[in-house]
Amino acid sequence: MTQGVLLTEIINFLKDDIIRLHGNFDNLLIKYLQAPSMVDEYTLDWINPAKIEKQFVAENSKARAIISNNEVIYTKTLIDSKKVLIVTNDPKLSITKIGHRFFSDKIQPLISHTAIINENAKIGVNAFIGENTVIGKCKIGNNVKIHHNVVIYDNVEIGNNVTVYSGAVIGPDGFGFQKDTNGDLIRFPQLGKVIIGDNVEIGSNTCIDRGALGNTEIGPGTKINNLCHIAHNVSIGRNVIITAHVNVSGSSIIEDNVWIAPNVSLKGHIIIGKNAFIGVGAVITKNVPVGETWVGNPAKKLK
Amino acid sequence: MTQGVLLTEIINFLKDDIIRLHGNFDNLLIKYLQAPSMVDEYTLDWINPAKIEKQFVAENSKARAIISNNEVIYTKTLIDSKKVLIVTNDPKLSITKIGHRFFSDKIQPLISHTAIINENAKIGVNAFIGENTVIGKCKIGNNVKIHHNVVIYDNVEIGNNVTVYSGAVIGPDGFGFQKDTNGDLIRFPQLGKVIIGDNVEIGSNTCIDRGALGNTEIGPGTKINNLCHIAHNVSIGRNVIITAHVNVSGSSIIEDNVWIAPNVSLKGHIIIGKNAFIGVGAVITKNVPVGETWVGNPAKKLK
Amino acid sequence: MTQGVLLTEIINFLKDDIIRLHGNFDNLLIKYLQAPSMVDEYTLDWINPAKIEKQFVAENSKARAIISNNEVIYTKTLIDSKKVLIVTNDPKLSITKIGHRFFSDKIQPLISHTAIINENAKIGVNAFIGENTVIGKCKIGNNVKIHHNVVIYDNVEIGNNVTVYSGAVIGPDGFGFQKDTNGDLIRFPQLGKVIIGDNVEIGSNTCIDRGALGNTEIGPGTKINNLCHIAHNVSIGRNVIITAHVNVSGSSIIEDNVWIAPNVSLKGHIIIGKNAFIGVGAVITKNVPVGETWVGNPAKKLK
Repeated sequence: MTQGVLLTEIINFLKDDIIRLHGNFDNLLIKYLQAPSMVDEYTLDWINPAKIEKQFVAENSKARAIISNNEVIYTKTLIDSKKVLIVTNDPKLSITKIGHRFFSDKIQPLISHTAIINENAKIGVNAFIGENTVIGKCKIGNNVKIHHNVVIYDNVEIGNNVTVYSGAVIGPDGFGFQKDTNGDLIRFPQLGKVIIGDNVEIGSNTCIDRGALGNTEIGPGTKINNLCHIAHNVSIGRNVIITAHVNVSGSSIIEDNVWIAPNVSLKGHIIIGKNAFIGVGAVITKNVPVGETWVGNPAKKLK
Repeated sequence: MTQGVLLTEIINFLKDDIIRLHGNFDNLLIKYLQAPSMVDEYTLDWINPAKIEKQFVAENSKARAIISNNEVIYTKTLIDSKKVLIVTNDPKLSITKIGHRFFSDKIQPLISHTAIINENAKIGVNAFIGENTVIGKCKIGNNVKIHHNVVIYDNVEIGNNVTVYSGAVIGPDGFGFQKDTNGDLIRFPQLGKVIIGDNVEIGSNTCIDRGALGNTEIGPGTKINNLCHIAHNVSIGRNVIITAHVNVSGSSIIEDNVWIAPNVSLKGHIIIGKNAFIGVGAVITKNVPVGETWVGNPAKKLK
Repeated sequence: MTQGVLLTEIINFLKDDIIRLHGNFDNLLIKYLQAPSMVDEYTLDWINPAKIEKQFVAENSKARAIISNNEVIYTKTLIDSKKVLIVTNDPKLSITKIGHRFFSDKIQPLISHTAIINENAKIGVNAFIGENTVIGKCKIGNNVKIHHNVVIYDNVEIGNNVTVYSGAVIGPDGFGFQKDTNGDLIRFPQLGKVIIGDNVEIGSNTCIDRGALGNTEIGPGTKINNLCHIAHNVSIGRNVIITAHVNVSGSSIIEDNVWIAPNVSLKGHIIIGKNAFIGVGAVITKNVPVGETWVGNPAKKLK
C-alpha cells in the first residue's frame, strides 16, 4: 500500500454516500488508514461519531483529508489548513467500505500444495485453500477462503464466500455419551452434517461439531470469532455475531441478528430470540426473548 | 450407509435388551438413524423416554420401525399402520449401540504419509495417525485414533483405544513461573509426563500440559470435549465427563464419574469429589464434596 | 537425564544464593527433580516455604540432598542420615534456576523441512521452527522457538527469545464489523500489526489478532498460556501473566506486572492498572485501578 490511491478515486467510489464535500482534493494521495496516534499527511483520517469534541479532533488532525458526519463544520481553521472534509451519514461505514475496496489484502485463489483434499470433495471456483489444510468428503461453494492448518471433516457443506481462519476444526463428532449397563460411556451416534451458509466467517481455532441425528447449521452472513465451540445440532440464524470464546451447547437455537459478547456460555436446548444481546461472560440457562439484553451468571434480563 | 441394514440383523444384535417385539419385520430395510424432523420410512425411529406424549409421537412417526420403552403400547393404530415396535428398557442406549455397530464411520488403521513421528516413539497395533500430526518420543497403545494436525510432545503415555481429535496439543510445558530477583519471570521446571488411560477421548483443539515435577494424569474411560485446558499436575479419574471450554488449573483432582458442564473453571489445587456435577459456567474456588451439584460464580452447592 | 549431574556442580552454580550448606556432598549424583511422592535417593528434593511442617518433611525425605529456606534446621536426625542441606532465601527460585540450567530439555536451533516460510520473512539467528508451521511476511528476532503447527500471518513482528507453543495463531484479522445499509455485516478494515516483545511466551492454540488501524502489542517478558484470545488493538505491558482461557477484548490495555487468573474475560476498551490481580472467572466490565484485586461476575474489588 506504499504507492497509495488518489483521493479522487475514493471520492468517486463513495459517491452517493457523500452529503457534502469541502476543499480541493486534486492529486491528493492517500497511503494509509491508521489509528489516531499514527495519523500523518498521507492518512485518510475519520472522526468516529461516538467521540466527543469532533470539531477539535478534525481541526487538530495531521491528515489532509478527513471523513466525518455533519457535526463537523468546515470552519475557517479547516479552510486555512487546506484540509479536505468529506461528510457522510455513517463515517465508520464509509471507512469500512474504503478499507475493504482499497486497503485490505486480497487473497488470491490458490490450492496450496500441502493441502490434503479428499478426492470426492467438491469445491467451487476461486477457492483459496491454505497450507496443511485437510478437507474431507465435503461440498464447498465458490470464492471460499480456507486458511492454514484447518481441518474440515467429511459431511460438511459450506456455501459461497465463506472464510475459515487458521486452526479451525469443522465437523468432528459431537460430544454425547450414554452410560452402558456397566457404567462405561458409549458415544451416542454422531451421524449428521455441518451446514454453513453463504458469507459466513469462522475464526481461528474455533470448533464446530457435526450433528448427532440431525445437522448443525450456521445461517448466511453469520460471523464467528476465535476459539468458539458450536456443539452438535446447534442452529444459528442469519447475520449473527458470535465473539471469541463463546460456547454454544448442543441443540441450542440462536435466531437472526443476535449479538453474543465474549466468553458467553449457553446451556443446551436454549433459544435466543432475534436481535437479542448477550453481555460478556453471561451464562445463559433459560430462553432469551426477542430483542432483550441479558447479563450475569446465571444471566438475567438487564433492566 | 445408503445400502442399509436389515432390521432382522439389528434385532439379533440387540437381542437380550429387547423386552417386547411387535409386528412383522421380515425384509424391512433400515437406512438411517435420523432426527425427528427427518424421519422417513427407511429410518429406525426412537422415542426418547424424556419426551412427553410418547404414544402420540410413535403413532405419528413416518418410520416403519420404532424403539421405545414400555410406556408405548402396541395399539390398534400401530398395528393397522404395520409398524414394528421394539421395546427396550433404555431406548437411548439401544440406539447408541445400534449407531455404533451399524451406522458410525469406522476409521481404518493408517499412518498418514504426512504424519511426523519421532523415531523413538512406540505405537501399538491398528493405529490411525492423521495428516500433519506430529508425535514426539511417546508410548502409545493399541487401536488409537489420532486425528489430523494434532501435536503430541515427548514424554506422553497414551493407553489403548484412545481417540484424539484434530488440533489437540498434548504434553507442552506447564505454565508455572517464578520471579527472579530482578523481576523477570523464569519458568519453573516442567519435567513431568502426561499419562492417558484406556478408552479416553480428547476433543479438538484441547490442550493438556505435562506435569511439572510430577505427572498430569487422565483416567480410563474419561471423555474431554473441545477447547479444554488441562493444566500441569492435574489428576482426573475414571469415566469423567469434561465438556467444552472447561479449564482445570494446576494440581487439581477430579474424581471418578464427575460431570463438568461447559465453560467451568477450576482454581488450582481443588478436589472435585466422586459423582459430583458442576453446572455450566461455574467458577470453582473450593473443594466440592462427593456427589454434590455446584453452580455459580463463585460456585456454591445447589440446594 | 539418567546420567545425572554432580551436586558439586549444582552448588557451584547456585553459589551466591546459598546462605548455609550442611553435610558432605562429594561425589553425590543428582538424577532428578521430582514431585514429593516420587522422591528417591537420586532426587534433589526441595521444601516449599509455603508448606507447614518443613522440618518433618525434610527429615522424612528419601532424598540425600534437600534445598530449603532457613526454617529447616540441620538437626541430629539430618546429620545422622547423612543428608546434605542447602539453605537459600528462595528455594523455589533456586530449584527453578537449577531445573532450567541442568534438567530442562534444550531445543536446538532447526528449521523443520515441513515449515512453510514466506520468502520475505526475516528470521534472526538460532531459530527453532517446528513441523508444519506457516510463517508469513514477518520480522522475527533471534533465539525464537516456534513450535509445531503454528500459523503466523503477515505483518507480525516478534522479538528475541520468544517461544510460541503448538497450534497458536498470530496475526489473523481482528473481529470488527459494520452493518451495511442493507443489514449485511462488512469487516471494518484490519490493517495493523501484531508486535511481540522480547522473552514473551505464547501458549498452545492461543490466538492473537492483528490491529485494526493501530497495532496489537505484547510487552517484553509477558507470558500467555493456552487457549487465550487477544483481540485487535489490545496493548499488554511487561511481565504480565495471562493464564489459560483468558479473553482480552478489543482495545483493552493491561499494564505491567498484572496477573490474570484462568477464564477471565475483559470487555473492550478496559484498562487494568499495574500490579492488579484478576481472580479466576472474573468478568471485567470496568477499569481496574493499580494494584487492586478484582473477582466475580461482574467483577468487583475484593475487600
